[in-house]
Amino acid sequence: MYLGSWLSRLCRGLSRPIGKTTQPTWGSLSRSLALSSQRIPELSSFVARTNTCGELRSSHLGQEVTLCGWIQYRRQNTFLVLRDWHGLVQVIIPQDESAASVRKILCEAPVESVVKVSGTVISRPPGQENPKMPTGEIEIKAKAAELLNACKKLPFEIKDFVKKTEALRLQYRYLDLRSFQMQYNLRLRSKMVMKMREYLCNLHGFVDIETPTLFKRTPGVARCYRDEGSRPDRQPEFTQIDIEMSFVDQAGIQHLTEGLLQYSWPDDKEPLVIPFPSMTFAEALATYGTDKPDTRFGMKIVDISDVFRNTEIRFLRDALAKPQGTIKAICVPEGAKYFKKEDIEFIKNFAAHHFSQEVLPIFLNAKRNWSSPFAKFIIEEERLELAKLMEIKEEDMILLTAGEHEKACSLLGKLRLECADLLETRGVVLRDPALFSFLWVVDFPLFLTKEGSPTELESAHHPFTAPHSSDIHLLYTEPEKVRGQHYDLVLNGTELGGGSIRIHDAQLQRYILETLLKEDVQLLSHLLQALDCGAPPHGGIALGLDRLVCLVTGVSSIRDVIAFPKSYRGHDLMSNAPDSVLPEELKPYHIQVSWPTDLEEEEKASATPSNHLNS
Amino acid sequence: MYLGSWLSRLCRGLSRPIGKTTQPTWGSLSRSLALSSQRIPELSSFVARTNTCGELRSSHLGQEVTLCGWIQYRRQNTFLVLRDWHGLVQVIIPQDESAASVRKILCEAPVESVVKVSGTVISRPPGQENPKMPTGEIEIKAKAAELLNACKKLPFEIKDFVKKTEALRLQYRYLDLRSFQMQYNLRLRSKMVMKMREYLCNLHGFVDIETPTLFKRTPGVARCYRDEGSRPDRQPEFTQIDIEMSFVDQAGIQHLTEGLLQYSWPDDKEPLVIPFPSMTFAEALATYGTDKPDTRFGMKIVDISDVFRNTEIRFLRDALAKPQGTIKAICVPEGAKYFKKEDIEFIKNFAAHHFSQEVLPIFLNAKRNWSSPFAKFIIEEERLELAKLMEIKEEDMILLTAGEHEKACSLLGKLRLECADLLETRGVVLRDPALFSFLWVVDFPLFLTKEGSPTELESAHHPFTAPHSSDIHLLYTEPEKVRGQHYDLVLNGTELGGGSIRIHDAQLQRYILETLLKEDVQLLSHLLQALDCGAPPHGGIALGLDRLVCLVTGVSSIRDVIAFPKSYRGHDLMSNAPDSVLPEELKPYHIQVSWPTDLEEEEKASATPSNHLNS
Repeated sequence: MYLGSWLSRLCRGLSRPIGKTTQPTWGSLSRSLALSSQRIPELSSFVARTNTCGELRSSHLGQEVTLCGWIQYRRQNTFLVLRDWHGLVQVIIPQDESAASVRKILCEAPVESVVKVSGTVISRPPGQENPKMPTGEIEIKAKAAELLNACKKLPFEIKDFVKKTEALRLQYRYLDLRSFQMQYNLRLRSKMVMKMREYLCNLHGFVDIETPTLFKRTPGVARCYRDEGSRPDRQPEFTQIDIEMSFVDQAGIQHLTEGLLQYSWPDDKEPLVIPFPSMTFAEALATYGTDKPDTRFGMKIVDISDVFRNTEIRFLRDALAKPQGTIKAICVPEGAKYFKKEDIEFIKNFAAHHFSQEVLPIFLNAKRNWSSPFAKFIIEEERLELAKLMEIKEEDMILLTAGEHEKACSLLGKLRLECADLLETRGVVLRDPALFSFLWVVDFPLFLTKEGSPTELESAHHPFTAPHSSDIHLLYTEPEKVRGQHYDLVLNGTELGGGSIRIHDAQLQRYILETLLKEDVQLLSHLLQALDCGAPPHGGIALGLDRLVCLVTGVSSIRDVIAFPKSYRGHDLMSNAPDSVLPEELKPYHIQVSWPTDLEEEEKASATPSNHLNS
Repeated sequence: MYLGSWLSRLCRGLSRPIGKTTQPTWGSLSRSLALSSQRIPELSSFVARTNTCGELRSSHLGQEVTLCGWIQYRRQNTFLVLRDWHGLVQVIIPQDESAASVRKILCEAPVESVVKVSGTVISRPPGQENPKMPTGEIEIKAKAAELLNACKKLPFEIKDFVKKTEALRLQYRYLDLRSFQMQYNLRLRSKMVMKMREYLCNLHGFVDIETPTLFKRTPGVARCYRDEGSRPDRQPEFTQIDIEMSFVDQAGIQHLTEGLLQYSWPDDKEPLVIPFPSMTFAEALATYGTDKPDTRFGMKIVDISDVFRNTEIRFLRDALAKPQGTIKAICVPEGAKYFKKEDIEFIKNFAAHHFSQEVLPIFLNAKRNWSSPFAKFIIEEERLELAKLMEIKEEDMILLTAGEHEKACSLLGKLRLECADLLETRGVVLRDPALFSFLWVVDFPLFLTKEGSPTELESAHHPFTAPHSSDIHLLYTEPEKVRGQHYDLVLNGTELGGGSIRIHDAQLQRYILETLLKEDVQLLSHLLQALDCGAPPHGGIALGLDRLVCLVTGVSSIRDVIAFPKSYRGHDLMSNAPDSVLPEELKPYHIQVSWPTDLEEEEKASATPSNHLNS
């Protein structure tokens, strides 16, 4: 017997409110849904209505229709606006005595009640058309009405412009899902996933395999669980698109991924241009100070060591004297114009606090005067050379730091993003919200030295990544120099996913696990056996679906693209889960739980006030 | 960082062996895959090969091709057969001295090794064509070869006719997945799921919602987990197709489901005829003795109480004298011919053991003589009436029982299936393997009386099922007589799924939970709140995907339609999971596990012999 828990699923009839929004309008959403497949979906099949609220136009004039929806608002007991997920339509409440019962239902039902209305599609009186409303040329003259469910409680209004805390939204998620934005996000997600499946299964012969979630401890399955705190881009359970192929190389996976994203890209966005640009890890670090560069804007890191070879500025001279010492800088456009003294203080403190580094600001003011605490120590020749290398313009600002390559780059990479945020709060548009800047980052090192134990190696990604074929000989001499056949896909500075060509040779896999990584190979004996049974060369990629949809829709948290997400603390606020379980219920599983006293207090404090349920 | 665990996913290049099989041939599988979508999948996109092994025909003559695949077998160091998932092709090993290196690779690689072969498509010499092989008109004249991975270990041959235990197959699942049958099952499953998604999302505007699995204890989410022993049709985790709709009634959900199955039905089967027949629960019980009748064959239960109103047979007379006493029978076709004395003994023991009931066999032999222990007590009038009611023919057998309606029906329902099995072991074909007999079972009671406590009620399915609108008044007077808006879909005697129209009225839901079922409504306060916020009328259905694919492919266990299933005992034999975890690893979660000593022994005994890993 299968039981369906209806609450954990989204119904087709969920609806959206009217409201001012900068998001794509309703009209464009329904248009893009209709265009997305060869056939227009039959939205009224199998249900009681004849039409959806959103589809009625002048072409329906004179038709007798039956609509089901929610009462959006009512005016003077004369009109009401009925809403379903497809749109809004105006209903005229009959005023004559013979329709008293219909009138009573439509006038007395609270807002957000569910009603069924039958009537005739008529023209609005001349001058009363509403051009902002897709159904604004017509209205429904109601003849019959049925109250399907009265709304007795409404903790917040559905309208987008009514602000509510995220905790309240999550507690009443079933109401929150009626909002235009959540409807748009979840429907877009569903549509993108469907297009991805079409691309993979129908166009390229992939097989959709459900992988088990009850499995040996393993670094990843397609529905993933992560035991760590939530962040705006993380959830305790999340979804990956996991692709595996045989007989493929890195370029093959990259082409596949590009084709997949291009094919599934929403119709209401600019089409994606492929192939995506590619950058080595070393280049990303040197130019952007990170392995996930936001390439929507410049402010690249420049090595200016040569400018200051003969400087008299002490800390620069000292830095260059050290092995691997460098001087690096970024040029912040209009930084001299927009940055205040406290901004500079913030930047300096940030560098000191997070990187124990000094940062030197240099301003070029509107009259092309250089200004800096060290300005007088920078000679004319250095200024000219610096201006040339950094392409500095009037009112720009240079941030300069000195030290070891990786550390200096990492610091400037962070400052680059901090400065971009600051500039944007001052009204400078650096990152076009309509721009989707994809980037492959490739040629990662296969191993890193373990922090605190520099003679030991650990995998940069995972121990199954194949080395570059041209670097294999280095495995036996200088393994830290081996590059992996690993690739990350970055979108607007966010890591969207990553993948690798895997090792298919058992002997090589055993050498890396046992000799280089000092792992217990017994734990992975089934993997080594599988490789020895004629495993094909293979590779793959995993794309974070939640993050992708989050970036595409432009919302700030992946919680807004997941139907029933966990809160920041990993709780489900709607059902109040996780919840405590009675010791008797754990007994059959031979499990005991003993919370430390302080934690228990904390958990209790964070639970819903009135009752701490045992289920 | 996303890590992909390649082992837990099926690669596109997995392959299939040749071998005699009664299953659909390879040719028909690839044909049906090609027909399934508007475009033929591009199976060689993104990979190193130019073609798949299975696609080459006379139309490719003269083409230079590169193939990747597994060595299926080799003959006299002259030919080898190369296999990929798409099919088989014959490769000619070059014999001339200049091709010594190619010859060495192709002659020395063990069977099941992975090779890349380049060469020319040529005609087979006249008379050497193989009409049983789709590529049988051509062969590949090899010019270059590369050993991609040598097969060093092969615990069993991949060929279907080589029998192996299920435990061995599960331990080496990655090899087992190369078999024709597993390839067919998993590819068919993927294709059916894709068609279902097309039907729902593209044709009917459904939204694909991922429901959380970390949630409050709830009777069902779309990936389901069940804490109970495995059976051939059960797994600890399984997959449901979960459909929810608003503004729908029972007929709407039934039509949707019928359309869904018809649309996704495999092309190599007879198309489904819809609508499916429907039967009330009461009728199913009275006619088949079960709520999931196998309607592929007759042997229906007949009430023959009236025949024996004046009988002298004591136990029948006694039975009829009791309130609700009945006499029921089934007619087993050719039972008199095929059933042996020990079969009758088995049937009698079965009835005595499981139902504490007596069963009386009556045979009509070839010369139309009645034979039965009680034959002499059955008068001519009764014989005539019985023959008419039961439509008995020469060499048939009647099984008769007496007692309370439900018990007598349940017994005969079980005996009906036992007799069908027995007849089929004797060579009688009762159930056509090509027949898919769908049936709706409807009008279930909403409540059952609790076993052992007949004044208390429990839900027949779940407490959210809406009552029949015409029975609502009975909720307050005779709730046990209320029928629920619940429907089960049965295929060939297996319950494929079920659903219901849900209660959307909070007051009714509260009354049923609190007053009738004596549940603690606090536990479901979020549900009641949701209903009070204008929840629409809604309903749905959940179909067991594993069972569906199992029945469609005709395999005997759902383990054969799941890529990485658990064993009968719920273990993953490939990775040896579940496994013990060190107390230190559980500490951060405040969990202790203490196995009872006897269980520990049992668990250890069932683990893989050599090592009990701690991970």
